[in-house]
Amino acid sequence: MKKLILLITAISACTVMNAQPSAYNLSEREFPKVNPDKSVTFSVSAPNAKALSVELGGSYPMTKDEQGVWTATTKPQVDGFHYYSLSAGGVQFADPSTYTFFGMSRYASAVEIPGAADAAFYTPKKDVAQGAVRSVTFYSDVCGEYRRAWVYTPAEYSTNSKNRYPVLYLQHGGGEDETGWLYQGFMDVILDNLIAEGKAEPMIIVCNCNACNYAGQEGRGGDEAFYDMMLKDCIPFIDSNFRTLSDRDHRAVAGLSWGAKNAYDLGLGHPELFSAVAGFSGIIVIGEFRRAGGGAPGYMNDDELLTAFNGVFADPEKFNKDYHLLWMGNGSVEGNNIQGMHEKLASKGINSVFYQSEGTAHEWLTWRRCLYEFSQKLFKF
Amino acid sequence: MKKLILLITAISACTVMNAQPSAYNLSEREFPKVNPDKSVTFSVSAPNAKALSVELGGSYPMTKDEQGVWTATTKPQVDGFHYYSLSAGGVQFADPSTYTFFGMSRYASAVEIPGAADAAFYTPKKDVAQGAVRSVTFYSDVCGEYRRAWVYTPAEYSTNSKNRYPVLYLQHGGGEDETGWLYQGFMDVILDNLIAEGKAEPMIIVCNCNACNYAGQEGRGGDEAFYDMMLKDCIPFIDSNFRTLSDRDHRAVAGLSWGAKNAYDLGLGHPELFSAVAGFSGIIVIGEFRRAGGGAPGYMNDDELLTAFNGVFADPEKFNKDYHLLWMGNGSVEGNNIQGMHEKLASKGINSVFYQSEGTAHEWLTWRRCLYEFSQKLFKF
Repeated sequence: MKKLILLITAISACTVMNAQPSAYNLSEREFPKVNPDKSVTFSVSAPNAKALSVELGGSYPMTKDEQGVWTATTKPQVDGFHYYSLSAGGVQFADPSTYTFFGMSRYASAVEIPGAADAAFYTPKKDVAQGAVRSVTFYSDVCGEYRRAWVYTPAEYSTNSKNRYPVLYLQHGGGEDETGWLYQGFMDVILDNLIAEGKAEPMIIVCNCNACNYAGQEGRGGDEAFYDMMLKDCIPFIDSNFRTLSDRDHRAVAGLSWGAKNAYDLGLGHPELFSAVAGFSGIIVIGEFRRAGGGAPGYMNDDELLTAFNGVFADPEKFNKDYHLLWMGNGSVEGNNIQGMHEKLASKGINSVFYQSEGTAHEWLTWRRCLYEFSQKLFKF
Repeated sequence: MKKLILLITAISACTVMNAQPSAYNLSEREFPKVNPDKSVTFSVSAPNAKALSVELGGSYPMTKDEQGVWTATTKPQVDGFHYYSLSAGGVQFADPSTYTFFGMSRYASAVEIPGAADAAFYTPKKDVAQGAVRSVTFYSDVCGEYRRAWVYTPAEYSTNSKNRYPVLYLQHGGGEDETGWLYQGFMDVILDNLIAEGKAEPMIIVCNCNACNYAGQEGRGGDEAFYDMMLKDCIPFIDSNFRTLSDRDHRAVAGLSWGAKNAYDLGLGHPELFSAVAGFSGIIVIGEFRRAGGGAPGYMNDDELLTAFNGVFADPEKFNKDYHLLWMGNGSVEGNNIQGMHEKLASKGINSVFYQSEGTAHEWLTWRRCLYEFSQKLFKF
């Protein structure tokens, strides 16, 4: 029953020399265990079970010993955070041995493959002043409901009671919610460490859930309801309840995966509100969203690119002056061609920053690194 | 993917007239569904499963239809919050249709049986100013690790930047952790509503996890390590990082179930630090803890009672003067004899307040009501 945020101190920056319990195991749970070759061994006591398997990328049937304990070992995994499931009797479910995270559109188990040489950046340090992450509830007229947001304030927010701060709106990915950047992403630890080293500006970070319905609407409202809620309810609430710098120079939006689309839509669609935009492992969606193999994305077409978002890209010189930062990143083994998007924009004279996380996939280590890199360039103009 | 804290707005104060989805279901999940007679119907799609059951008090085998959807309906349940599990192939696990809560020593599913006539007290209201609940991380020298606490500050904390506030340390029960009072208990909503009505003093509430090991220790440190951590690390951290009133008159401790024992141990054992103590559904443990049927609890023995906690009860007049409030409550159908403890203390001339929650068991509706009643009497002297 140790606390998640503490367990991350166990994420070693060293190469794994011995098998060790995953950082997200509940207190005193030995399994799942990460082996020196980065394979993972799972173990579940279920004497009455007929068959069990682990779903982590592929499906791994478990074998039972005479005590009724089932085990399986996966192939080696890439560094970072991976959701997984157990499967028994045709049902997939969370492993009772671990903390759970809202992902895969439900509460899911996860393992962390340590070994990233740079793990110190998302590890708490004793001599670093702690910011606060608070749950705030606000009423949305757009949605006709109370909504929760998580708000990070830097350590000095509570001591410098007159200072005002810039705000980054930071979005989760598909199947996740507003808790992702806190529990999976360690945003508070990353910013605390950077601010203490003088590498990032003290800033407020606000995380919302992108699932929105219009008041009275049946079914999902889609991204439009989310954008309306952000513009009409959330941003005004934050600006009137926190000591923000509320001009566009001091407001940014970023997101991961589908949240990158959300960030580009909000940030590029509303230059009157945002001056910095970032997407982690996601594209600027222009026209129809096309999955891999479904045709070239809209930004590859010059006509579409230069007319999208009310022509924000039509005048590169103006864009480069208006936007302090357009930032994009991805993991080197996830297959997204974010570098191609960056190069396409460059070919039109549009400035952007591209970052690639080495050896990571479409997962949270990529996004922790993206936040670490992006936030060092943010609000510096 | 709606947010839990919003879903609680769906907890109706009216009698259930039609079957309705439980308040903790994920967005757009129809089941579990609470029926008019307060039975609960569960449904899981698992075409390949051989057998499934629901564990809620008893075990309910599910039956499969031709589409592979399994269903079961329980007997009627008492009002309030109930953990439950699905079981397949000999393994118990969380239902993928619901939010999960740290209880049963793992992340567990839950249903809420609505119908409590008083549900408004734990339901957010649009015109009520919202306090903040923040996650804080502090280093514990006792445990040799970073620990997380949740801290509630009243709405006016951020606007009256000079005021100082009393502090209630509030503990979870066995198998739960420091998230319980936020996610299961709705402590922030309860206090926001009471403070807005002028019925409770604005106060800070701090929730810690009672699982502690001494630094370097193998295995569990037990309650002693927790108490040391609270006294040496947590309370000093809170008093130096929040605008607290740090004298004993303005510090209280309360808890539920095993957390009631923790609260009595801390509060009665440290009169120099605490002036108010409360236990919800738990006893003052003197000597050995005795479960039902294991002999009378220690407080029933006059000698044990009057010498316990360095003789804090030995001089009733002094106790009644020193302690502003000794408060105890339970649910009418949970079987604890908390009223007997209250009467035993009264027979010795020791003042205490006893409250009974009608029709509720050893569950969160009992404890929400206890917090609601207790906090109205707290810090008023």
